[in-house]
Amino acid sequence: MTSPLKFNCRVPVRFHDLDVMGHAHHTLPIIYFEEARAAYWREIAGRTNVVDIDYVLAEIRVQFKQRILYPATLMVRTGVTHVGNASFTMAYELTDEEGVVLATGESVQVMFDYERGKSMRMPPEVRTRIENYEGHSG
Amino acid sequence: MTSPLKFNCRVPVRFHDLDVMGHAHHTLPIIYFEEARAAYWREIAGRTNVVDIDYVLAEIRVQFKQRILYPATLMVRTGVTHVGNASFTMAYELTDEEGVVLATGESVQVMFDYERGKSMRMPPEVRTRIENYEGHSG
Amino acid sequence: MTSPLKFNCRVPVRFHDLDVMGHAHHTLPIIYFEEARAAYWREIAGRTNVVDIDYVLAEIRVQFKQRILYPATLMVRTGVTHVGNASFTMAYELTDEEGVVLATGESVQVMFDYERGKSMRMPPEVRTRIENYEGHSG
Amino acid sequence: MTSPLKFNCRVPVRFHDLDVMGHAHHTLPIIYFEEARAAYWREIAGRTNVVDIDYVLAEIRVQFKQRILYPATLMVRTGVTHVGNASFTMAYELTDEEGVVLATGESVQVMFDYERGKSMRMPPEVRTRIENYEGHSG
Repeated sequence: MTSPLKFNCRVPVRFHDLDVMGHAHHTLPIIYFEEARAAYWREIAGRTNVVDIDYVLAEIRVQFKQRILYPATLMVRTGVTHVGNASFTMAYELTDEEGVVLATGESVQVMFDYERGKSMRMPPEVRTRIENYEGHSG
Repeated sequence: MTSPLKFNCRVPVRFHDLDVMGHAHHTLPIIYFEEARAAYWREIAGRTNVVDIDYVLAEIRVQFKQRILYPATLMVRTGVTHVGNASFTMAYELTDEEGVVLATGESVQVMFDYERGKSMRMPPEVRTRIENYEGHSG
Repeated sequence: MTSPLKFNCRVPVRFHDLDVMGHAHHTLPIIYFEEARAAYWREIAGRTNVVDIDYVLAEIRVQFKQRILYPATLMVRTGVTHVGNASFTMAYELTDEEGVVLATGESVQVMFDYERGKSMRMPPEVRTRIENYEGHSG
Repeated sequence: MTSPLKFNCRVPVRFHDLDVMGHAHHTLPIIYFEEARAAYWREIAGRTNVVDIDYVLAEIRVQFKQRILYPATLMVRTGVTHVGNASFTMAYELTDEEGVVLATGESVQVMFDYERGKSMRMPPEVRTRIENYEGHSG
């Protein structure tokens, strides 16, 4: 899959994000990615309610490129790079306002039926919406 | 490297760890891993002060196996699986009290001189302590 | 109300609790209090499920006495100091293992019907359980 | 002291701020207040570096008025309502974009010399800057 990461979202760093070493704790890029993924899920996948999050994370990988300092406003770019039968993959790039890459990452989500407590197939309307936006299938 | 993860640490889940989906947020395994890594760094690497943390994270990978619920006390097993010239790799396994694996992960740390703001070589005494504990070199 | 704070709970400080100033961030005593309140709600009020939390916080006050450092295991003592028609008040004391008081606090909770989205009366069985434990009414 | 809260700051709610009850956890207003206090400390008190935070919190009080939902961008209004010899008091009001008050609060900070590990007098230049901005003394 070679489509660029088209969806983006700005996230201000908070003072509270800093850890004892003076930079944003290493879980924070994941939280910044999440802001972009949640916005994507609302705006592109069409799941407008918080309770409509119908997946769980199966895997996440983050590469930390630069320390994240405060104050700053960051940009997260994201996109769905693969849609499977019951899962999908997203990639992320986190930059500062000058475009310097601070972190990159990838996450795999498995569709999950919270009422039944088990994984489920990707809903067709979600797949269609994602493929229409990303301009690719699979 | 085939040595088992010998170092372990118990971490109680907090109510505050739960997210809106009713399970520990997906950053929490990383925070549980960190508790074990910080204890390892104190007890094995011999860096007894918080300010003696002389590395930054370069990469982290987490595989989520089971939802983490509350209340629970978890076990983190960890160990250093590789020591390089300026970095080291740790692996993690997170289980519940029955031994069910909830998450696994791996992190790469780069030695970092906070005063100079740049990476540095692994201090020989830290390398020796780690190799003595893990029973391997490299 | 003069009853002592009878209920207690141990909470280990996490590395992640530290902020850039090297002590637990000032929201952390509230999170430690919450661990004790959640345990109280399960064990004394008899609400055994996380989803059985049927109140919202109306007010919280914290007095910070000493910086909270890491690593440490803390003790939270708590109790219900007042039960009203639709609310209850809890007091908290946070100490280290030598009994040094690190923080104290008080919170007011209003019973809340999440399905209807509004406050509700204190359920009689919860009131009775609390009064039996605390040895006082009101 | 009757001066209004003149300083303000916008803070977007994050998905991660939500707890299992579907609203921002009750520590979050304190974190939103902190964003405004940190900006005030930089812009009004003239302490431009993160490491120039030369106070510790002595007390905080929060009144929760409305559940804080996601997504939303909030407004924090704040100001210093009292400057003492070694401490200062700030008040906070948190509203949504329609001006609905979600939470209010007050915090007392004690000037702290981190190198010596003890409280210290309010630096005169900080006092002057605050009084000039707030238009009052004491």
